[in-house]
Amino acid sequence: MSLAVSPLAPERFPDMPDVAGVELFTGATGTYKGGRDNVLLARFTPGTAVAGVLTRSRCASAPIEWCRQHLPGGVARGLVVNAGNANAFTGIKGAVSTRAVADHAAGLIGCSADEMFLGSTGVIGEPLDPAPLMRVLDGMDLARPKGLEAAARTIMTTDTFAKGAIRTVVLDGQTVTIAGIAKGSGMIAPDMATMLSFIFTDAPVAAPVLQALLSRHIETSFNAITVDSDTSTSDTCLLFATGAANGVAPIAKLDDPRADAFGDALHEVLLDLALQIVRDGEGANKFIKVEVTGAESDKSAAIIGRSIANSPLIKTAIAGEDANWGRVVMAVGKAGEPADRDRLRISFGPHLVADQGVRSPDYSEADVSAYMKGQELEISVDLGLGSGQAVIYTCDLTHGYIAINADYRS
Amino acid sequence: MSLAVSPLAPERFPDMPDVAGVELFTGATGTYKGGRDNVLLARFTPGTAVAGVLTRSRCASAPIEWCRQHLPGGVARGLVVNAGNANAFTGIKGAVSTRAVADHAAGLIGCSADEMFLGSTGVIGEPLDPAPLMRVLDGMDLARPKGLEAAARTIMTTDTFAKGAIRTVVLDGQTVTIAGIAKGSGMIAPDMATMLSFIFTDAPVAAPVLQALLSRHIETSFNAITVDSDTSTSDTCLLFATGAANGVAPIAKLDDPRADAFGDALHEVLLDLALQIVRDGEGANKFIKVEVTGAESDKSAAIIGRSIANSPLIKTAIAGEDANWGRVVMAVGKAGEPADRDRLRISFGPHLVADQGVRSPDYSEADVSAYMKGQELEISVDLGLGSGQAVIYTCDLTHGYIAINADYRS
Repeated sequence: MSLAVSPLAPERFPDMPDVAGVELFTGATGTYKGGRDNVLLARFTPGTAVAGVLTRSRCASAPIEWCRQHLPGGVARGLVVNAGNANAFTGIKGAVSTRAVADHAAGLIGCSADEMFLGSTGVIGEPLDPAPLMRVLDGMDLARPKGLEAAARTIMTTDTFAKGAIRTVVLDGQTVTIAGIAKGSGMIAPDMATMLSFIFTDAPVAAPVLQALLSRHIETSFNAITVDSDTSTSDTCLLFATGAANGVAPIAKLDDPRADAFGDALHEVLLDLALQIVRDGEGANKFIKVEVTGAESDKSAAIIGRSIANSPLIKTAIAGEDANWGRVVMAVGKAGEPADRDRLRISFGPHLVADQGVRSPDYSEADVSAYMKGQELEISVDLGLGSGQAVIYTCDLTHGYIAINADYRS
Repeated sequence: MSLAVSPLAPERFPDMPDVAGVELFTGATGTYKGGRDNVLLARFTPGTAVAGVLTRSRCASAPIEWCRQHLPGGVARGLVVNAGNANAFTGIKGAVSTRAVADHAAGLIGCSADEMFLGSTGVIGEPLDPAPLMRVLDGMDLARPKGLEAAARTIMTTDTFAKGAIRTVVLDGQTVTIAGIAKGSGMIAPDMATMLSFIFTDAPVAAPVLQALLSRHIETSFNAITVDSDTSTSDTCLLFATGAANGVAPIAKLDDPRADAFGDALHEVLLDLALQIVRDGEGANKFIKVEVTGAESDKSAAIIGRSIANSPLIKTAIAGEDANWGRVVMAVGKAGEPADRDRLRISFGPHLVADQGVRSPDYSEADVSAYMKGQELEISVDLGLGSGQAVIYTCDLTHGYIAINADYRS
């Protein structure tokens, strides 16, 4: 099935210059029609630090286990990603295949296999033959690196557009870059990060600081999105810091004030990529921001936000451009978190629809209906209990989602 | 929107004779097109015991709060149910309306309002004017009771067929009857009971025994079904025991051996009704039984079963008749419960598809694909960890669900 580009897609891929210390190469195993590239190799300059967050799925893929094993080392020289086969639920064969690819790529780069990181996305349960991958790696011209857009296209599966984001931040008077790519469209309810995302920076940041910043900012970016409530076996977000920027002293501690500046820019890249995944949600026609305030805690607010964002009845109502706030009441009620019906305030965009346990007296169905025709919608719920808050991002549930996931034969 | 009868509907409503001690009356407020009846009054003989389970939603409806307040009394003389307006999220007005209807019906029956029970189903957030309901109650001919099928039709909303179930059990050499009706189609993921279900028996069972048996058997019946993971604000299951059966000594204690016999028959009625609700799941084309075994505990098995049964990716794959067991792996993995990928066994019906962390060597795609064309499907997952088990029932997720919930304007 060939999919039309999401109506919520950004106009174009951002301008993304290369990141110093990172070289990207792509190739094709022939898995995809038209022979499009589906294997990515990244080569990092010596001294590159790495941090990562990985799925909490109990049925994690072989590359997830590989990364989990090698992240504590904090050092990376390379990354191999393949699209088309997730190498998940492939047992001992999967682990063998993972080691073979890591060993082979390490040989090409001239590093230890422990310094190679891996990502796979695609079909679950299909054994991954490492031979074609190794042949593609052998065939890459390591003298001719490619750009980030080519890399972003290489890791796509059911994505309808390539996803990239870039920010710069000035440290010690020098501009450093944080550039990221991501893929993901369905099976999106990351519990650590989304399907696959790789962030590169030339800033010199020590691995423990990198990890702390990534873990902090993932919560309000990748962990704040949901397309279909289905958490993948392969969610991966890896962050590589080459330190190749000139004239910037290493950031070795989290309380270095530059860590905050770097962290803020990192958060912008993570959130930008995460929202692009929502905008490419399978079948999505509407982008929905769910804002919960006044909860007993931030955690409680996030659970309620997720209950709203994952409700099929709310997502279908929005697909139907119906401000069905009764379903929002339902989703707040079912979340199991502290809520007092008689203090609940619900708004769609600027329109207050429910207040103090009843329909708002100012409610105008015509105004709200006009608002619902928009492509970017906001649902705000105030619980009136405390100061806990959260924002969750999602999309609507349409015939397109059913078409993508049911109207096919595998 | 007028809906075609679900392809999973039973052939016909069961033969359901009247239950001694119960009289049923119906009438119409004119809410529904064609003036179909949408108000049910039940009158019970003096001495009728009552038990109930109610939604755990934090945004429960006014009739739920009424029932929660009066269930501890254990005594019922009447029941009023209306379809078309849920009287949920209606604030103080909702409570006033509930009391007005209870007082009025109590006057007609000649009992205390405390002995009246109430149920409402339909739109959330619309104030419920009690006057039309009271007029309909006044207009009922209390000399001419109606049958259980008429009662079942009266409480329908988006249901495509009326739901009833009946069992008999012999106590003290006498046959007693347990007859139930239910309604529900969408917003079905009961966390106590489903939308609305009313069970009537002429057995003489004391209220505390009745409550204990209902609470025990609800877990593996109404609480084991899900259509769309959306728990209603109004889920209600009430059980009335008139004691009007002749020659049966009262069951006053839970350790009376007759309580088990009665409980088993009660469970059959509850499960029968619950499965009818799944069979009327919005847009459903397939009935799915998810069986989880080998979990660390029954509770853990139920969480995993629900994770599978609520997964949109699994439900759409089944709609597409695809044995996509990779998605089952995903749903086991995301459930957050103990699971060991390398011990997992997954079957579709009689076909073992995955074993010990990899695709089964015996897997035949042709055989499994043929199985998936059936209307009644079974997914079995064995975790290989312990003896915990659970069964969850659900339906597929189709274009029909989207059509019902998105392709309309409210």
